[in-house]
Amino acid sequence: MIAPFPFSAIVGQGDMKCAMILTAIEPALGGVLVFGDRGTGKSTAVRALAALLPPIRMVAGSPVNAERPEDTPDWATAPLGEIVERPTPVIDLPLGVTEDRVTGALDIERALTLGERAFQPGLLARANRGYLYIDEVNLLEDHIVDLLLDVAQSGENVVEREGLSIRHPARFVLVGSGNPEEGELRPQLLDRFGLSVEVSSPTDIEERIEVIRRRDAYERDTADFMAHWQAEDARIRAAILAARENLRSITTPAEVLRDCATLCIAIGADGLRGELTLLRAARALAAYENVVAVTREHLTQVAPLALSHRLRRDPLDEAGSAARITRAMQEVWG
Amino acid sequence: MIAPFPFSAIVGQGDMKCAMILTAIEPALGGVLVFGDRGTGKSTAVRALAALLPPIRMVAGSPVNAERPEDTPDWATAPLGEIVERPTPVIDLPLGVTEDRVTGALDIERALTLGERAFQPGLLARANRGYLYIDEVNLLEDHIVDLLLDVAQSGENVVEREGLSIRHPARFVLVGSGNPEEGELRPQLLDRFGLSVEVSSPTDIEERIEVIRRRDAYERDTADFMAHWQAEDARIRAAILAARENLRSITTPAEVLRDCATLCIAIGADGLRGELTLLRAARALAAYENVVAVTREHLTQVAPLALSHRLRRDPLDEAGSAARITRAMQEVWG
Amino acid sequence: MIAPFPFSAIVGQGDMKCAMILTAIEPALGGVLVFGDRGTGKSTAVRALAALLPPIRMVAGSPVNAERPEDTPDWATAPLGEIVERPTPVIDLPLGVTEDRVTGALDIERALTLGERAFQPGLLARANRGYLYIDEVNLLEDHIVDLLLDVAQSGENVVEREGLSIRHPARFVLVGSGNPEEGELRPQLLDRFGLSVEVSSPTDIEERIEVIRRRDAYERDTADFMAHWQAEDARIRAAILAARENLRSITTPAEVLRDCATLCIAIGADGLRGELTLLRAARALAAYENVVAVTREHLTQVAPLALSHRLRRDPLDEAGSAARITRAMQEVWG
Amino acid sequence: MIAPFPFSAIVGQGDMKCAMILTAIEPALGGVLVFGDRGTGKSTAVRALAALLPPIRMVAGSPVNAERPEDTPDWATAPLGEIVERPTPVIDLPLGVTEDRVTGALDIERALTLGERAFQPGLLARANRGYLYIDEVNLLEDHIVDLLLDVAQSGENVVEREGLSIRHPARFVLVGSGNPEEGELRPQLLDRFGLSVEVSSPTDIEERIEVIRRRDAYERDTADFMAHWQAEDARIRAAILAARENLRSITTPAEVLRDCATLCIAIGADGLRGELTLLRAARALAAYENVVAVTREHLTQVAPLALSHRLRRDPLDEAGSAARITRAMQEVWG
Amino acid sequence: MIAPFPFSAIVGQGDMKCAMILTAIEPALGGVLVFGDRGTGKSTAVRALAALLPPIRMVAGSPVNAERPEDTPDWATAPLGEIVERPTPVIDLPLGVTEDRVTGALDIERALTLGERAFQPGLLARANRGYLYIDEVNLLEDHIVDLLLDVAQSGENVVEREGLSIRHPARFVLVGSGNPEEGELRPQLLDRFGLSVEVSSPTDIEERIEVIRRRDAYERDTADFMAHWQAEDARIRAAILAARENLRSITTPAEVLRDCATLCIAIGADGLRGELTLLRAARALAAYENVVAVTREHLTQVAPLALSHRLRRDPLDEAGSAARITRAMQEVWG
Amino acid sequence: MIAPFPFSAIVGQGDMKCAMILTAIEPALGGVLVFGDRGTGKSTAVRALAALLPPIRMVAGSPVNAERPEDTPDWATAPLGEIVERPTPVIDLPLGVTEDRVTGALDIERALTLGERAFQPGLLARANRGYLYIDEVNLLEDHIVDLLLDVAQSGENVVEREGLSIRHPARFVLVGSGNPEEGELRPQLLDRFGLSVEVSSPTDIEERIEVIRRRDAYERDTADFMAHWQAEDARIRAAILAARENLRSITTPAEVLRDCATLCIAIGADGLRGELTLLRAARALAAYENVVAVTREHLTQVAPLALSHRLRRDPLDEAGSAARITRAMQEVWG
Repeated sequence: MIAPFPFSAIVGQGDMKCAMILTAIEPALGGVLVFGDRGTGKSTAVRALAALLPPIRMVAGSPVNAERPEDTPDWATAPLGEIVERPTPVIDLPLGVTEDRVTGALDIERALTLGERAFQPGLLARANRGYLYIDEVNLLEDHIVDLLLDVAQSGENVVEREGLSIRHPARFVLVGSGNPEEGELRPQLLDRFGLSVEVSSPTDIEERIEVIRRRDAYERDTADFMAHWQAEDARIRAAILAARENLRSITTPAEVLRDCATLCIAIGADGLRGELTLLRAARALAAYENVVAVTREHLTQVAPLALSHRLRRDPLDEAGSAARITRAMQEVWG
Repeated sequence: MIAPFPFSAIVGQGDMKCAMILTAIEPALGGVLVFGDRGTGKSTAVRALAALLPPIRMVAGSPVNAERPEDTPDWATAPLGEIVERPTPVIDLPLGVTEDRVTGALDIERALTLGERAFQPGLLARANRGYLYIDEVNLLEDHIVDLLLDVAQSGENVVEREGLSIRHPARFVLVGSGNPEEGELRPQLLDRFGLSVEVSSPTDIEERIEVIRRRDAYERDTADFMAHWQAEDARIRAAILAARENLRSITTPAEVLRDCATLCIAIGADGLRGELTLLRAARALAAYENVVAVTREHLTQVAPLALSHRLRRDPLDEAGSAARITRAMQEVWG
Repeated sequence: MIAPFPFSAIVGQGDMKCAMILTAIEPALGGVLVFGDRGTGKSTAVRALAALLPPIRMVAGSPVNAERPEDTPDWATAPLGEIVERPTPVIDLPLGVTEDRVTGALDIERALTLGERAFQPGLLARANRGYLYIDEVNLLEDHIVDLLLDVAQSGENVVEREGLSIRHPARFVLVGSGNPEEGELRPQLLDRFGLSVEVSSPTDIEERIEVIRRRDAYERDTADFMAHWQAEDARIRAAILAARENLRSITTPAEVLRDCATLCIAIGADGLRGELTLLRAARALAAYENVVAVTREHLTQVAPLALSHRLRRDPLDEAGSAARITRAMQEVWG
Repeated sequence: MIAPFPFSAIVGQGDMKCAMILTAIEPALGGVLVFGDRGTGKSTAVRALAALLPPIRMVAGSPVNAERPEDTPDWATAPLGEIVERPTPVIDLPLGVTEDRVTGALDIERALTLGERAFQPGLLARANRGYLYIDEVNLLEDHIVDLLLDVAQSGENVVEREGLSIRHPARFVLVGSGNPEEGELRPQLLDRFGLSVEVSSPTDIEERIEVIRRRDAYERDTADFMAHWQAEDARIRAAILAARENLRSITTPAEVLRDCATLCIAIGADGLRGELTLLRAARALAAYENVVAVTREHLTQVAPLALSHRLRRDPLDEAGSAARITRAMQEVWG
Repeated sequence: MIAPFPFSAIVGQGDMKCAMILTAIEPALGGVLVFGDRGTGKSTAVRALAALLPPIRMVAGSPVNAERPEDTPDWATAPLGEIVERPTPVIDLPLGVTEDRVTGALDIERALTLGERAFQPGLLARANRGYLYIDEVNLLEDHIVDLLLDVAQSGENVVEREGLSIRHPARFVLVGSGNPEEGELRPQLLDRFGLSVEVSSPTDIEERIEVIRRRDAYERDTADFMAHWQAEDARIRAAILAARENLRSITTPAEVLRDCATLCIAIGADGLRGELTLLRAARALAAYENVVAVTREHLTQVAPLALSHRLRRDPLDEAGSAARITRAMQEVWG
Repeated sequence: MIAPFPFSAIVGQGDMKCAMILTAIEPALGGVLVFGDRGTGKSTAVRALAALLPPIRMVAGSPVNAERPEDTPDWATAPLGEIVERPTPVIDLPLGVTEDRVTGALDIERALTLGERAFQPGLLARANRGYLYIDEVNLLEDHIVDLLLDVAQSGENVVEREGLSIRHPARFVLVGSGNPEEGELRPQLLDRFGLSVEVSSPTDIEERIEVIRRRDAYERDTADFMAHWQAEDARIRAAILAARENLRSITTPAEVLRDCATLCIAIGADGLRGELTLLRAARALAAYENVVAVTREHLTQVAPLALSHRLRRDPLDEAGSAARITRAMQEVWG
């Protein structure tokens, strides 16, 4: 397999890169939705992030990438190995995947040959402690998206089918890409994604030439191109690791909490997921910037990411979602 | 698994907490429907209730959580153990659950290996003597909701499929949450739920900040947070247990019966389930308050819970359901 | 299982009770349809009737409740026992029942273990000589209702599937309940039910209080309540048994035949099922009243039961079905 | 099983009785369609005809009711018996019959136990040399009706499925009943039925009383009633047998052929099935009347039966089909 | 089986008979579509053609009717016999045929008993070197028609299913009949049929009487009727055999090629199948007439057959397809 | 099988031939879509290209046509042979192909006989290093087209079904033909095809005659016709092989990159696939012309192929896609 395009070589697309870095620092943010026209590099970015992420320590052979031998579920059949380092798992949901491969299912082979009812884990098990990527999430059936969000939120995969009654850890960041022209997600599903970003083709001619130039260079001599961007990717990786360490010690001033609440009431967010995500994203950004406390500036930067997909559609307001949030911040906070 | 959010730490939402406590005192009330926007803490509340409930005494290994060995159905295959204390079962209906896992079905493994037609119990058996929770009940197919209500009402699960003819006790409280914007339940199904409540995000800024503060505190140091609220949860649990003892001895004055009937005729409730639920809910509230008789004040408090979802829709009346019931009480009782 | 609510303790609902008693006297009447809003006690009444009915004499172990050993079908595999008394069978069609469980099907277990093509009887076999109850019959698929009516009328279940070619007696009274607001039966199906009644919640305040009072008393101390109503139930049961004896000897004057014909022509009934049902129901009522001949008064009493569901809908006539029939009787008979 | 209602005791309904007698004389006429409201005795008439028909001579045990041992298909597995007399087979297509039971299919039992690919014949085999009755033919799926008409016309059942490639004789008269209010057959299917009749409830009061009186007498004392009508049924049976003998020797004058053609051109019949059926039906009627040649009077009597269902619908012509044909005969033949 | 109606005894219907004869001379023409009302003798004509066709020489027992032993596919399991003469195969696509019987499929019996993955050929194999007849082709699902046309055109059946990867020769003439009132074929499918004809009932009274007379004579004494027409059928068969011999040596003048092109451009035929079919049909006609070169007269005669179904529908032009083509020929060629 | 029509004998259709040659030089271009009316020779051209292509070197017996033994996937069960030369694989997606035959699936035979879970490769494996042709791609279900494009782009087939978790190389050029009148592909799918061409029947009379003449000559004496065109086909094949060698060394001047960007911005192409394809196609053309650098002239020639299907539909602009691109080039580049 060819090495993926380097994360730091992506031209522009600051919001998308920021959102992805935040989920690498704080996986509990709840996934990212990337909206955009065809051909704007959505899937390139996800694959680039995969290559950038720091490795995890896990028990070799664990079907759920368990950190400690005692975390291995009792249905695992292979003997466990030593503690090893592995790349952060990034699992693609391939087109045409069947539901039994997502959740896991009865192991037919063992059932037929050994006559026992064993569990064969699915992609959710393999995604544990990593990323699950769905291209064109809006083309997936609602019940599968619902199931994926449910598991992503609870961190646990519960299987009740074919006589099986299984649960295992499945903590992962869900990344979905979608083209809003091809059908939309239900508001109920949108709300359960943590962050969202919109990407588009650059309209600046020099930026556009630069995109083609880099892409062409990458394809004509991949090894040379990778070497060139390796240092910058390493710098980001180190910053993510440091931020993970800092995260617990970031303080949240009372006025920041109040800012979260006033903004969310102002934009009419239905529930409380908006505020919690806003708070957590700002805290992750503070950690990435290596400061000690969350400030209103952090909120300002992440608010479009955390709240855009939670706005009710307003047919009389022609401004885009991000613009409406920026305007609300100016009105509420002055 | 992380300890669920404490029941007593939920900010506001008095109606929802009241409805849940009443079903814990009188399971025959017939379940609770919780309506509300996304992100308003519906599923948090159910999980909190689960942790609050007093334990049950049951035969270890009984597939239906039987209280006495002689209540174990004849299809149970595992040997029975001693009488033990277990948390009140709270069973989630996971997304994508198949009907055979709900009702139970032919045990394929035994059929294939032992050549006998054995019954493998489903979630209805595991929910016996406890709670069954359905998130987004309005997205379930009607025939499954119908089946669940049928079993909840009769207290018995009847399975006629794949050559099986099985029945076993399945007494549980059904709790369904739903978002009215995403499709509605048929009136026929609504009527079969005992109580209903509507929840919404707080609009008061201080209350909203308090919600975020508590949620954030819970997530950052769960153990500390749990310890802080433990006493209050214990107080409620004790009151529920006392109320269960009192319930049989509460008296119902004739004028209370008359009040039930006049109110239900006034609001035009179709059948008699409204009156019976109103009476039972008021009695459970009296027991919780540790008084000897039901009064009109008890009726006043529980009437919105017991009757809101039984009103016919009136397009000319813009008041909400609860307001229409309160108005009717004033008109009828003065 | 808790004892069902006593038949005689049902408040009001004279038509429904009358219709049910008539089918107990003359099973060939062709079933009863009970229309009504939710919560009006439809299923309570059916279960009450079940408990009221006199027992049948049958061969122990017969899969079709056969009266004599020689009536046992040749596919029965269990050895037959002695002649015993059993309660009249009342079979519920549970929600989600599969067609193979209704009609019976290939016995998979015997097929797999013994390699023979045996028949496993279904609910139609168990309902023989008794009652088959369908709650919300209007929600059943047409082809199942059709099948049930077909069998109910012919008294025989014919199975042609999975290589089986089986027939066995299946004489039962079909009782269906339905809510007309939730979809209607095709006229073709309506016509094949013998009688129909409409039930509604009482609007009289005292009657309504009495309903709640009795229901509450029944639930709080079932044994005491049952004892109180036992004598009245026994009186009705004895009257039914006597009427069955009388039925053959009731005479039908020629002017009663003419009355049947003139009434049915006047209301424009399509076929001849109306007349025959009217005649038979009047005769069963005469037998219940222990008189020797059918009179016009008997016709008057049962005509709404026998003909209401056979009227063509008339959008210009706002009167209810029963009222239109009463009016027609006055016009035709003077 | 109770003896069916006697054919000759049916009150009125001359057309239907005539059509059925004609198919008993000349099975190649191509079946009968009986249209009519519910409850007009359609299925009673078919069952009555069944009991009236003369027996057939056949090889005992032949799965296709073969007349001679050499006509038995090579897939028959049971040993053949002697030549016996059996009632003319009348096969009901029961509701919910599966296609494999209609056409026959792979014999699963033999496949599993003996490992051979044997054919298990279906209802088409059993209907050979007899009648196949479909109640509510308009509710059957088109492809099944098509298949039945195809086999009825070719006299042969061709099975190409599940690796089987089988053909066997299947000559039968198809009788379908339908309610035109419940959906219609495609013209293509209508045209393939030979004759059609419309039945309705009598509107004459005396006739209607007579219908009820006979039906009631039949149900109250079946044996007595059967005895009363036995002679008349025997007379019709003898006439049918005589007509079958005469049929080959009836002559068809050239002007009768011309009358067929002019009438069919006048009514605009699409194809030539109308003329051929008209000719054959008239010839069968002549045979039944025991005369030597077909006359215009025979055509006049059978034309409504043979042509009504072949008229194109004419929204501007309010006359019924039979009336339009009678009018056409007057215009064309004078 | 009864002998089919003789081809030469068909009254009128010159176009249909011509089209069928042309495909017998040049099978590569690509099949015939016969449009017409019900009852116009479409299927009679096809069966008549079957009986008329000269026999083929083939290896006895070859599943694909192979001419030489070396043409037998390697999946054939039966031992091959000698070279024999057999009637040209004419395969009916029976109603309800399953796709696996059309294309062939896994031989389940061999799979189960011998444990090997063998191919069981379908109707396409049996139709090789003959005719495949589909009655009511417009009622077939598009994907089956597509598949049949694909195979007919490529002369090869490719099976990729159930783990099989098989190909075998399947050269046959496809004959489809359809009623345009019952749904139409997609233009894409129409274009892939070589020729088309429209048939209708004769409106001339003498012709119509002749049709009935012959049909009636055939049915009353088949043997006598067959003998009467045998010589004429033999004459046509000999002419077809001679034309097959001549076909290779017919020359095509350059102006005939030009005539083909100008005509097709004039009528706006989309692709080039029209021209090629026109050319080939004219050449086959020249061969049948035993002349040495194609002329414009040949084109004139076959153009309606080759081009009618390739015209775009023109709602402003009320002339029929054939008339529009005749008009175009006059305009283009003068 | 008959030799396909020679590529160089195709009359006209320059764009289509050019597009096909480019994909033979640079398979990474991403496939070709051929739009056109029925009968315009689309499938003829693909089959002609297949015969023209240079052979590949591969391991005999490799299920994925691997170049080196070490590239054979570990699920391959057959022993590998020597390095051999084989024609470039061109795989047809036959009508009615099942998804398991496309992607590969569980090998049922091995599962049943050897009890092991082996992979049986599908058409994607066989297409590796070659061409995959889909006739009427617009009639395929979206999810299959999506899957094919996904695999074509990633060069890898990922199978997650039936307990299998397999990946293998699947690098091929996808060629789809479609008739825009019969339904369209989603823009999302269109964008993922590299090049597109539109074909139509020639309207020039001489060209049209030449097409028929050649086609007729080919069919009447294939061998002679093939011999005539062999040299020209060989010349094209040699030029393709030379271009493949040159491709790596072609230089891309900065102004060409800028031309790509300005053109794509001018026509409003959504993403960046347009620019990259334009660049690559121009480079392949330069290699075919055996020059050292890409020029604006190369861009001009391939722009309609690379960009036509990426235009947004503009209902106010009646010009065809290719014309709009030509116009844009004139406006942007002067």
